[in-house]
Amino acid sequence: MPALTFEITNQDTTTHARVGRVTTPHGSFDTPAFMPVGTQGTVKGLLPDQVRESGAQMILGNTYHLMLRPGSELVASQGGLQDWSRWRGPMLTDSGGFQVFSLADLNRITDDGVRFKSHLDGATIELTPERSMRVQHELGADIIMAFDDCPPAGDSFEGDAASYAERVRAANERTLRWLDRCVAEHTRSGRDDKQALFPIVQGGTDLDQRTWCVERVCAADCPGYAIGGVAVGEPPEEIHRVVAHTAPLMPKSKPRYLMGVGYERDIVAAVRAGVDMFDCVLPTRNGRKGYCFTPRGVVKLRNASHKRDPGPIDPDCGCPACSRGYSRSYLHHLFRADELLGPTLASLHNLWHFQRLMLDIRHAIAHNDWSLLARDWPVAQLPTATG
Amino acid sequence: MPALTFEITNQDTTTHARVGRVTTPHGSFDTPAFMPVGTQGTVKGLLPDQVRESGAQMILGNTYHLMLRPGSELVASQGGLQDWSRWRGPMLTDSGGFQVFSLADLNRITDDGVRFKSHLDGATIELTPERSMRVQHELGADIIMAFDDCPPAGDSFEGDAASYAERVRAANERTLRWLDRCVAEHTRSGRDDKQALFPIVQGGTDLDQRTWCVERVCAADCPGYAIGGVAVGEPPEEIHRVVAHTAPLMPKSKPRYLMGVGYERDIVAAVRAGVDMFDCVLPTRNGRKGYCFTPRGVVKLRNASHKRDPGPIDPDCGCPACSRGYSRSYLHHLFRADELLGPTLASLHNLWHFQRLMLDIRHAIAHNDWSLLARDWPVAQLPTATG
Repeated sequence: MPALTFEITNQDTTTHARVGRVTTPHGSFDTPAFMPVGTQGTVKGLLPDQVRESGAQMILGNTYHLMLRPGSELVASQGGLQDWSRWRGPMLTDSGGFQVFSLADLNRITDDGVRFKSHLDGATIELTPERSMRVQHELGADIIMAFDDCPPAGDSFEGDAASYAERVRAANERTLRWLDRCVAEHTRSGRDDKQALFPIVQGGTDLDQRTWCVERVCAADCPGYAIGGVAVGEPPEEIHRVVAHTAPLMPKSKPRYLMGVGYERDIVAAVRAGVDMFDCVLPTRNGRKGYCFTPRGVVKLRNASHKRDPGPIDPDCGCPACSRGYSRSYLHHLFRADELLGPTLASLHNLWHFQRLMLDIRHAIAHNDWSLLARDWPVAQLPTATG
Repeated sequence: MPALTFEITNQDTTTHARVGRVTTPHGSFDTPAFMPVGTQGTVKGLLPDQVRESGAQMILGNTYHLMLRPGSELVASQGGLQDWSRWRGPMLTDSGGFQVFSLADLNRITDDGVRFKSHLDGATIELTPERSMRVQHELGADIIMAFDDCPPAGDSFEGDAASYAERVRAANERTLRWLDRCVAEHTRSGRDDKQALFPIVQGGTDLDQRTWCVERVCAADCPGYAIGGVAVGEPPEEIHRVVAHTAPLMPKSKPRYLMGVGYERDIVAAVRAGVDMFDCVLPTRNGRKGYCFTPRGVVKLRNASHKRDPGPIDPDCGCPACSRGYSRSYLHHLFRADELLGPTLASLHNLWHFQRLMLDIRHAIAHNDWSLLARDWPVAQLPTATG
């Protein structure tokens, strides 16, 4: 039996969007799905039951953080990441590569892999395709990601167009060589009936490179595929352009995962391009700062305007903060007084917000009717969207 | 109708201990009771529902903190502290005096009151018996405390025995003068049918002064009385000596509240002396540091010995951390990684621990049988206790 099955229950008639259901050894989740991020084995500040009650059916863990502390061997000895962290449901781990490139003191990239200094204690650590697989095998998530070379976005690249194109091309070729090694290591492990390996399509903001990469990456027969290297600093229009080009080129019958995205309008645009899975730290990272998402825009709880506001963050929200009478006045106080309950309630609210968006998106696709989404989610509309 | 009624349902046959029930405008609570502390309008890191599920029926708020931020007028405008903070049940506020003496930059004490600099912004603020009453009226708790002069414990007093005796005597006399003004202000407010004013017995570690004070303080006809100035730095034996002397002198028919105490053995000793109510920050303050209470002693979650321990904090505990499979290994990781969920789970565990102690204490008294308590709570035994 394969580690993952994907059933499409409705295909939208006017876009590439589809609703479906992914089944893994730890249970199923509805797509399009938004996965909250549990970086270090916990969605920050929240109990798994609270995450589950928000509607989240699947969460993500970060290989880079967990391999450094407490170490994947320890997690394996405690029954794996899901059992250890008490998350009863499907989970995905990333490959570690993205955090190595963004957080660590990187001191060598070769075809073999990367060598970096840990951001925790400066220890020198090697990460290769094989090691990324072995670490993810020890963590034990239902979906694991291939170790890839993620180039920066064109806008943030220091160099001219020609050298950017060369960097992207080289990254793509390395990503493919590393993918072969990931597939080989994963197959050798015998764990491919328990953990589904998703390769990652790179290519930066160069659409030809995206096409080149998607054709080769998707030639590997895997249970699902991801789009990486998006939302790494480029403007929203660039995100939408790359995703709208890339997603439809990926196999229709497999789940498509857009990594690290994002804001509501980015998610809706990607769903319309045929993407099925999302993850992002926005709900919890911004929640901890008192930034609360609503369908009409962000509410910044620290603002003095909320000091005497008896109303909830969002009157239409069913989250524990909004539905149980916590006022903006009280939440403002919690943030001003640096009380832990502020980040907890705001993070909860934001998780509910994104899960409500996914519910409304699935409803729109299932009924081939985007009008409610256009009416109820002004923040999710693109300037050019026709509804 | 009075703001508070107290019914004693069983009097222990061998000690001064009794079980009972206090009824307030916001509901009832069983005694002996332990009140978690919600310093700034929240029991740190926990939702009111989580506090309630631990078995806590009543919580405490700090007048000093709330008068400085956000201000009692704001809290009143939002419906009072209970409604604003979504605590559905009885609440008690202290007078603000203790924090003024311990936290603020105190620059004048006179018979009129105290003048101090706010620890938040250095603003000069006056607190008098009348102002303490008015602030507590605005916060709106069911039980409010008289504004008193709390002398330090004998051990921590800088001076000889004669000058300590003089300091304690002067504090007692001032406490009584201030009590008259508190009673007058409270009566004038017309809120004595909604909020019960508890006077506070002072006297330091001088038993004669305790006797002198208890006789005069309890001459004021109030719904309950407190013992203050205990656990302010003196050793446990001193706490027990003062409480064992003072509590039995207080009216039998009214609830007796021992302020700011404490550890399990201090609570059990005080219950046996006839105390009905307790509050302490220990469960949450120590929980945030990873110190977890168990009937057999403290578990320090940061200790390396827990790194691979698959067991719970306490196998006999029913709290969300212990009963839902969170291992010491995982909790150790949360604290080492500075994850918010660590303090949350440890605080929850500690609240459940103290509420379980109170449940077992009430059971012991109701059945005139202390044997189970002696067997199940080694940490709560005094070296000299006979069980």
